[in-house]
Amino acid sequence: MPGEFELIGRYFTRPARTALLGVGDDCALVKQPDGLALAISTDMLVEGVHFDPAVDPESLGHKAMAVNLSDLAAMGAEPRWATLAIALPAVREDWLAAFSRGLFTLAERFGVDLIGGDTTRGPLTLSITVIGTSPPGLALRRDGAQPGDDIWLSGCTGEAGLGLAVRAGALKLPPDVARACLRRLDWPEPRVALGRALRGVAHSAIDVSDGLLQDLGHICERSSLAARIEADRLPRAQAVALSGERGMQALLAGGDDYELCFTAASKDRELVLAAAARLGVAVSRIGTLSEGTVGVTLFGPGGQEPLPVLRGYDHFSR
Amino acid sequence: MPGEFELIGRYFTRPARTALLGVGDDCALVKQPDGLALAISTDMLVEGVHFDPAVDPESLGHKAMAVNLSDLAAMGAEPRWATLAIALPAVREDWLAAFSRGLFTLAERFGVDLIGGDTTRGPLTLSITVIGTSPPGLALRRDGAQPGDDIWLSGCTGEAGLGLAVRAGALKLPPDVARACLRRLDWPEPRVALGRALRGVAHSAIDVSDGLLQDLGHICERSSLAARIEADRLPRAQAVALSGERGMQALLAGGDDYELCFTAASKDRELVLAAAARLGVAVSRIGTLSEGTVGVTLFGPGGQEPLPVLRGYDHFSR
Repeated sequence: MPGEFELIGRYFTRPARTALLGVGDDCALVKQPDGLALAISTDMLVEGVHFDPAVDPESLGHKAMAVNLSDLAAMGAEPRWATLAIALPAVREDWLAAFSRGLFTLAERFGVDLIGGDTTRGPLTLSITVIGTSPPGLALRRDGAQPGDDIWLSGCTGEAGLGLAVRAGALKLPPDVARACLRRLDWPEPRVALGRALRGVAHSAIDVSDGLLQDLGHICERSSLAARIEADRLPRAQAVALSGERGMQALLAGGDDYELCFTAASKDRELVLAAAARLGVAVSRIGTLSEGTVGVTLFGPGGQEPLPVLRGYDHFSR
Repeated sequence: MPGEFELIGRYFTRPARTALLGVGDDCALVKQPDGLALAISTDMLVEGVHFDPAVDPESLGHKAMAVNLSDLAAMGAEPRWATLAIALPAVREDWLAAFSRGLFTLAERFGVDLIGGDTTRGPLTLSITVIGTSPPGLALRRDGAQPGDDIWLSGCTGEAGLGLAVRAGALKLPPDVARACLRRLDWPEPRVALGRALRGVAHSAIDVSDGLLQDLGHICERSSLAARIEADRLPRAQAVALSGERGMQALLAGGDDYELCFTAASKDRELVLAAAARLGVAVSRIGTLSEGTVGVTLFGPGGQEPLPVLRGYDHFSR
């Protein structure tokens, strides 16, 4: 069975005629008359696939908006508007009140107006489309990386993936550490300010939603470059450090992190560090890009290391 | 249980701060820097609610795009871009090929670029967001109707509703008439060119998706006016004429018609007729608006007539 990305490619990708950038990045970009680009992203969340029926509706509302804002963050775009289409099996007012509270609280924090929507009956499904703006030529794309670029990561990855295992009862962690993982899973914080600050500095960016290696792999594919990651440079949250092999697996391929992975010229290291410091966001330089076989290779102190299951979340393949 | 519209209103409508027009019209409108407005509309179609599992996937692709283009038509907007989010229970390539053929054929006919999307596993659900552009101040809104306006209808309504009954085996019609009804139901034609031609002429417009009376009722509510419809003036397709009481019910409240109902000053009758004639679209003057009790009243030769079930399609109330 073909993977999700192949599917999208085969049937829904046509050359963008009027757009600056069509299917295949975090957002599409379309030109506005004054040159300001609109960045547009859509996604769909399905109960039982992307979230559990028992999910807290307030965190679901937050997360549904957050994952879309994260796509705008990855383009360095300014969030402006959103639409929500929602199918509900039945009307439950307490559920709706909590869901909309989670959604609007985050939207308002980022100045996003919910301008339209559709409500219908059906299996619980959410689709949000977000629209942002980006100054001419400054959008952070996946295809802009250059040989010699440093590879950077905001925050750290792996906790959300471990949170899934904690929730499933498949992983025991100290209570406070487990809570931190669940919080990362349920209440992701889109890196909007960092994305904006990286305009004109970063050459490329992606948000880490499907696992660090897979998402960095998209930058490699779109920019036709090879990525070398230094395992020792990967920041490890406490939960990851406590979880051994499983922790490294989550760090590299867990998904749901919503951090930014981006690349920038090595001459601009101080610019990157200063921008992140101003925002109080940790950033780590985790590797380099070069010409060579397109893809990601992981290196430890003893040389090349085996990669964990490299595929991130593919809804059709598992 | 509250109706669909009340639900949307209660939980997802907040005052639009940065938008010209938020939730509550066919599209939202947001201002662009040069004054051109963006018109944005989203909807969600769910298998078993909006379409039958046995639906022809090519017509489904067509219709999913058509109903959204119809929302742009009702604003007089120029279609530009679309995104598609789709949940599929499994990968069926023949299905995807036919669905995307139906969707792209219509999109390309109207110059719409599909610029982004999301594909996931789940119960078959489609959500399309369309974006169009509209010159400053010329968008056709629901709240712009004036007392004394003529009420106009493009084409005729009722066939799609009768098509549903034909497909369910609940209505027998001559084969060619039945086929015409099914074609109206499965392959609606958005009135994009008419909407564009009505800019600066019509005071208000809506697309008839939930039944003529209900949709005209939205213009009445948003413009605080009373509508008087002359039953004798309502155009009747052959299928409606052949179907007696049931035909009139479908004409007034059947839904899925995707015609435009619009209002214009009576001094502009010739302008309306000329614009429609240039496009080869039939338009009929079916009534008038006035100050008075907000709502729609139907008049026959003998005076006021009883209205059929006035509610259009409310996904949560039946």
